[in-house]
Amino acid sequence: MTPNNKNMSKKQSHTFAQPFITEGGDEIANLTVVYQTWGTLNAARDNAVLVCHALTGNTEANKWFGGLFGAGKTLDPSRHFIICPNVLGSCYGTTGPADIHPKADKPYRVDFPHITVRDMVRMHQQLLDELAIRRLAFVIGGSLGGMQALEFAIMDNRPQAAICIGMGKAHHPWAIGISHTQRQAIYGDPNWSGGYYTNDAPPKNGLATARMIAMNSYRDPADYQQKFSRNRQGQSDQFQVESYLDYQGQKLATRFDAVSYVRLTQAMDSHNVARGRGSYQDVLGSINIPVLVAGINSDRLYPPNEQKELAGLLRRGNYEEIKSPYGHDAFLIEFRQMDELFTSFLTKNQHAKI
Amino acid sequence: MTPNNKNMSKKQSHTFAQPFITEGGDEIANLTVVYQTWGTLNAARDNAVLVCHALTGNTEANKWFGGLFGAGKTLDPSRHFIICPNVLGSCYGTTGPADIHPKADKPYRVDFPHITVRDMVRMHQQLLDELAIRRLAFVIGGSLGGMQALEFAIMDNRPQAAICIGMGKAHHPWAIGISHTQRQAIYGDPNWSGGYYTNDAPPKNGLATARMIAMNSYRDPADYQQKFSRNRQGQSDQFQVESYLDYQGQKLATRFDAVSYVRLTQAMDSHNVARGRGSYQDVLGSINIPVLVAGINSDRLYPPNEQKELAGLLRRGNYEEIKSPYGHDAFLIEFRQMDELFTSFLTKNQHAKI
Repeated sequence: MTPNNKNMSKKQSHTFAQPFITEGGDEIANLTVVYQTWGTLNAARDNAVLVCHALTGNTEANKWFGGLFGAGKTLDPSRHFIICPNVLGSCYGTTGPADIHPKADKPYRVDFPHITVRDMVRMHQQLLDELAIRRLAFVIGGSLGGMQALEFAIMDNRPQAAICIGMGKAHHPWAIGISHTQRQAIYGDPNWSGGYYTNDAPPKNGLATARMIAMNSYRDPADYQQKFSRNRQGQSDQFQVESYLDYQGQKLATRFDAVSYVRLTQAMDSHNVARGRGSYQDVLGSINIPVLVAGINSDRLYPPNEQKELAGLLRRGNYEEIKSPYGHDAFLIEFRQMDELFTSFLTKNQHAKI
Repeated sequence: MTPNNKNMSKKQSHTFAQPFITEGGDEIANLTVVYQTWGTLNAARDNAVLVCHALTGNTEANKWFGGLFGAGKTLDPSRHFIICPNVLGSCYGTTGPADIHPKADKPYRVDFPHITVRDMVRMHQQLLDELAIRRLAFVIGGSLGGMQALEFAIMDNRPQAAICIGMGKAHHPWAIGISHTQRQAIYGDPNWSGGYYTNDAPPKNGLATARMIAMNSYRDPADYQQKFSRNRQGQSDQFQVESYLDYQGQKLATRFDAVSYVRLTQAMDSHNVARGRGSYQDVLGSINIPVLVAGINSDRLYPPNEQKELAGLLRRGNYEEIKSPYGHDAFLIEFRQMDELFTSFLTKNQHAKI
């Protein structure tokens, strides 16, 4: 194997022999997980890294986390065996609402069960079991990915460190409220059809509106001011910001499934590390590994005070702040800052560094 | 006339003889304005006060501004002749999209022209002309009402003072973005019918979703945390915050017209005191009356920095801050603080105080 081969990406899938039982008690038969890997698992099988993606993400971490990938960087295929699974309920390969319900011979749609962040983590665990990976150098993710990383640190003893970006100990009622409006926009689309739409006529406009609502929560007013001011789009009466939102909405609507969007936002709403476990202090205080909690100074959806609080509740929590004008989305943009913070954190915690 | 009579409210209407021409050049024939008054115009005809309402408001200022009404308060029917007109394009009496188009013998709907804050002000001016009111002790309003009050101070020499709450010199692109998502939710309702819905089947769900989006922008996360936390509604799976938003959405949908909502949010988006007039410095620096600009510390939609900037650009601008956990909506809640700030401001500017 040449050194270059080490950096090659592989996209694979695995179908679990046993039915997957969700936290809510529902069964998903023939659960298939699609995942992508970079680098090579070493002989000691201790250089694996789990990357968890966000709401509309996929397995292509080398693209959406591209700036963290490379020699000497946070995610280094020449040192790490990087694994990025598509989450349960998504529409990028892993079983989700748009897939065929084995008992019905048609897509699940809203018959796909409600899932939680913990369900996503249990699927990741089962995948790692299949791959015989018993140690993770670290687990990392932002937003919904950060929620998974945090839950992973609670539920699994494989990770030696965790990096959680732009989220807190539980989904805030204000964030739930924003999710709720997005789902209402989807439900209101005439193509929604009670959640049993056809592939030919999905509720694209509702999904587009949901994305627009989300975009406003991801971004910062100062950024909009700088980008759009009150300028009109070309010769039209439309403001540039309206045209931008329309574009972002339509772009997502062509690449994402509406019920996946509903189920994944509901999973985010479910995020609460204390659920059924006791106090936040007890749950978070029992995590023995170092956890870097990174906030974004301009994040309005998951403001830094949530990350500071989380870091303070962790036994070995470290709070660091990403300075950015891009709001919540900074975790997909500010790679230079993030890579410095993350590699520094991993170096300080040498047992977590390969 | 007994002293008590002075405090009585009168609801009246006036239909203008001449067609109203909007800023965009459209004609509205037979424009009727509905307004409510409290108190009595004095012999000098100089004790009138104009109250401008917000997006979904109406003429009943004694209800939505109730805490500012009363003897010795900001709005005192024993001293002031208080006038509150329903704005152009609304659905509470003044001609709007739900009224019959005189040329079509059916409701205007989306054939109702686009209107601006300046159009609202010009209608107020014509009403004051009809009432032969040549001096206003002051003009006051919050949110869209504050935009009207500010434009009134620019466009009219009657007011001796102005009180503008929770808005800035122009509608921010981020606020436009939030308005845009609300309109998309309305347009996406199957009952929208291109804007030509029937009275029997209005786009209530879309309007409800629009209201929910707005509510999230009006309120503060800390308030949601305190009110709802992550509690569920009764025995259901629904979070309390979702139930609250559903209730608020449906409540508005039963009392408001969808095209009015579209046209009034577009009017808010039009708000820009510099449009066609020159620089903000020149426009705002040319207002000779004292203007109290009140911000709300927890207002996320129109954050205090916008009000501070506005106050700084005014020749005789005063910035005061309402301390509240209720976000933008504080201007309809924090009456004790507001009344203290406003009466103090009016007392300091004696020529504006009756």
